[in-house]
Amino acid sequence: MTAVDRDVSTPSPPGVTASLSLILEEVRATTDAVMTHRADDLDNLAETLANARRIFVLGAGRSGIALQMTAMRLMHLGLTVHVVGDVTTPAIGPGDVLLTASGSGTTTSIVRGADAAVKAGAKVAVITTAAASPLAALDTAVVVVPAAGKLDRSGTVSAQYAGGLFEQTVMLLGDALFHSLWLRSGQSADELWPRHSNLE
Amino acid sequence: MTAVDRDVSTPSPPGVTASLSLILEEVRATTDAVMTHRADDLDNLAETLANARRIFVLGAGRSGIALQMTAMRLMHLGLTVHVVGDVTTPAIGPGDVLLTASGSGTTTSIVRGADAAVKAGAKVAVITTAAASPLAALDTAVVVVPAAGKLDRSGTVSAQYAGGLFEQTVMLLGDALFHSLWLRSGQSADELWPRHSNLE
Amino acid sequence: MTAVDRDVSTPSPPGVTASLSLILEEVRATTDAVMTHRADDLDNLAETLANARRIFVLGAGRSGIALQMTAMRLMHLGLTVHVVGDVTTPAIGPGDVLLTASGSGTTTSIVRGADAAVKAGAKVAVITTAAASPLAALDTAVVVVPAAGKLDRSGTVSAQYAGGLFEQTVMLLGDALFHSLWLRSGQSADELWPRHSNLE
Amino acid sequence: MTAVDRDVSTPSPPGVTASLSLILEEVRATTDAVMTHRADDLDNLAETLANARRIFVLGAGRSGIALQMTAMRLMHLGLTVHVVGDVTTPAIGPGDVLLTASGSGTTTSIVRGADAAVKAGAKVAVITTAAASPLAALDTAVVVVPAAGKLDRSGTVSAQYAGGLFEQTVMLLGDALFHSLWLRSGQSADELWPRHSNLE
Repeated sequence: MTAVDRDVSTPSPPGVTASLSLILEEVRATTDAVMTHRADDLDNLAETLANARRIFVLGAGRSGIALQMTAMRLMHLGLTVHVVGDVTTPAIGPGDVLLTASGSGTTTSIVRGADAAVKAGAKVAVITTAAASPLAALDTAVVVVPAAGKLDRSGTVSAQYAGGLFEQTVMLLGDALFHSLWLRSGQSADELWPRHSNLE
Repeated sequence: MTAVDRDVSTPSPPGVTASLSLILEEVRATTDAVMTHRADDLDNLAETLANARRIFVLGAGRSGIALQMTAMRLMHLGLTVHVVGDVTTPAIGPGDVLLTASGSGTTTSIVRGADAAVKAGAKVAVITTAAASPLAALDTAVVVVPAAGKLDRSGTVSAQYAGGLFEQTVMLLGDALFHSLWLRSGQSADELWPRHSNLE
Repeated sequence: MTAVDRDVSTPSPPGVTASLSLILEEVRATTDAVMTHRADDLDNLAETLANARRIFVLGAGRSGIALQMTAMRLMHLGLTVHVVGDVTTPAIGPGDVLLTASGSGTTTSIVRGADAAVKAGAKVAVITTAAASPLAALDTAVVVVPAAGKLDRSGTVSAQYAGGLFEQTVMLLGDALFHSLWLRSGQSADELWPRHSNLE
Repeated sequence: MTAVDRDVSTPSPPGVTASLSLILEEVRATTDAVMTHRADDLDNLAETLANARRIFVLGAGRSGIALQMTAMRLMHLGLTVHVVGDVTTPAIGPGDVLLTASGSGTTTSIVRGADAAVKAGAKVAVITTAAASPLAALDTAVVVVPAAGKLDRSGTVSAQYAGGLFEQTVMLLGDALFHSLWLRSGQSADELWPRHSNLE
């Protein structure tokens, strides 16, 4: 299918602003809950990242893409950061931190990667919706987000498709982590700027 | 530098929740402004995507990554979508739409790509902060977002680093566009699910 | 380490041409053996690709990168091709072919992906050094290459590091498959050219 | 088109081994010429890479993919390597080397990247077919390969499609450069192995 079919007999659907309003409301409620109940976990996660020798990010699907946005910013901050799956990403080891996100906390490739990271002597930091998941069980730093996981398509937690709300939250948490690490680094914006890629 | 240095003599910086709260407030103000002043532009952009033969997404840096999140969702919806730069992305042509985002509207690779798309007979849809930019000038569908561009490091529009607020907005607008296209498609969540990658 | 140290007291190592000569000799011997003993398998693999509804490529490390070179060429030929792991790659299904390469035939992510492809009703085509591997066991089209696998660092099969010879062979076999499919398609070079990406 | 059409009235085309044989012969002739006429240039290129603070690789299309194979190996050797376009690739600067490849030596994005690298104080190393190209003109280390460029579809230099022969040569030269740097590093295979990605 290369175009979205519309049934002309049905009433016009609500516009994009209605969707944007819905998303903002869900994001606000979810981040409010995180701020109320998980403030210490967030600070703990920031501390873990700040003390890492190197940071590796690993995710599947859209939460993996969201973590790439975080990875780029952490590089701008002067940290050594690698995306798992990139061609030049080396082996993880002691002193390193694996930052990962999985709504369900059960994504096979993520759980396997996190296990391998722990075995290699690295710490693992997790963002997930599932406090009781295998992934949450092995972590040194975990933030539990009250958003639907990708596998939950019931619509009871979020009216959005699959893990949309979780993935949006991962991106915003990543940016909040960056913002806090930036403030505590004492660097000005002009000190970060020269680190941006200059060959594209 | 592999760890963020802290000066122990300074008072403790605000926690991550303070950063998250700041981001949410900026995102809310920006999307409010878009919803108030750009509702028609958003619907026009949704219409342009819905009628596309194929959708190509092109972005640089973090706004490019944000568009990849949108691209994945549009594929889940059953649309034919390509990320410019991917190995199997073919040539764009008549009937296709290039969806792009650039805070400044002047990023060289984006402007060149958009020019090439127009010359090839494709439509171009743009998300930008700069109504008067070269990119906004050639578009058939443009949404202007009142967020700081990446090059604006003055801090007057946003307290976040560089184009952070713009990039967050691109991601949320992309998800709002998807949500609206999903509603008008009449497909259930269970109809989208079998399109998710099953080999990872 | 950011630079290769040299011990000035040792004699000068052989130049790059010696390495290139070694590689060429190994590649020649390996492809000779494939041509002598695996001609039918290669033609069977070409036939499998030619009849595919869509082609998905999957590999890990350098053999995965080599398959990306093949994927791009097959797209130039007009075939529908996806790289597993790309953002817009959909689910595989009946009529599709998964083209994969694994020196050892035991790489976990590849074996899992191949199993999933078979379960989804797709065919699997494999390039491997290991005729008795799990991967070779489930295939509809398999080409066995007498080159060292990545895990074989004994130096008995190849003087090159790890799976270098296998990965070079994968790339050359991929180009030979393309060249044959191009000839049988009857398309001229000028017919392929307009399919090259025009937005970069 | 999702399958290669065949005209059943035409005689059967030659098999894949004929294509592989053709490719091997072209590769052999090209690398022979490089070994005969460009031995010093290759050693110069190896020396440039060995002395780099960090190595950045940049390429478009299939020669860019070939350079990614080289980049991964140089990382295995312990060098600091970045692929331009990757999310965590920082700015290039003094002491760094940009390794690039362009058949024509005129690819816009490559020439712009190389110019930017020189302006940033980095060295540029080039593999190209065009000794008189803009790219070759600015280099500190250049290897000219007598293979058809991508834009040459006349078939006089190579019977393969577009830049196939050049791209194969880039991959083999990259592996020859790695092999030589490995020998001069004095590291055993077992010393390189622990650097391979351990999270996939």
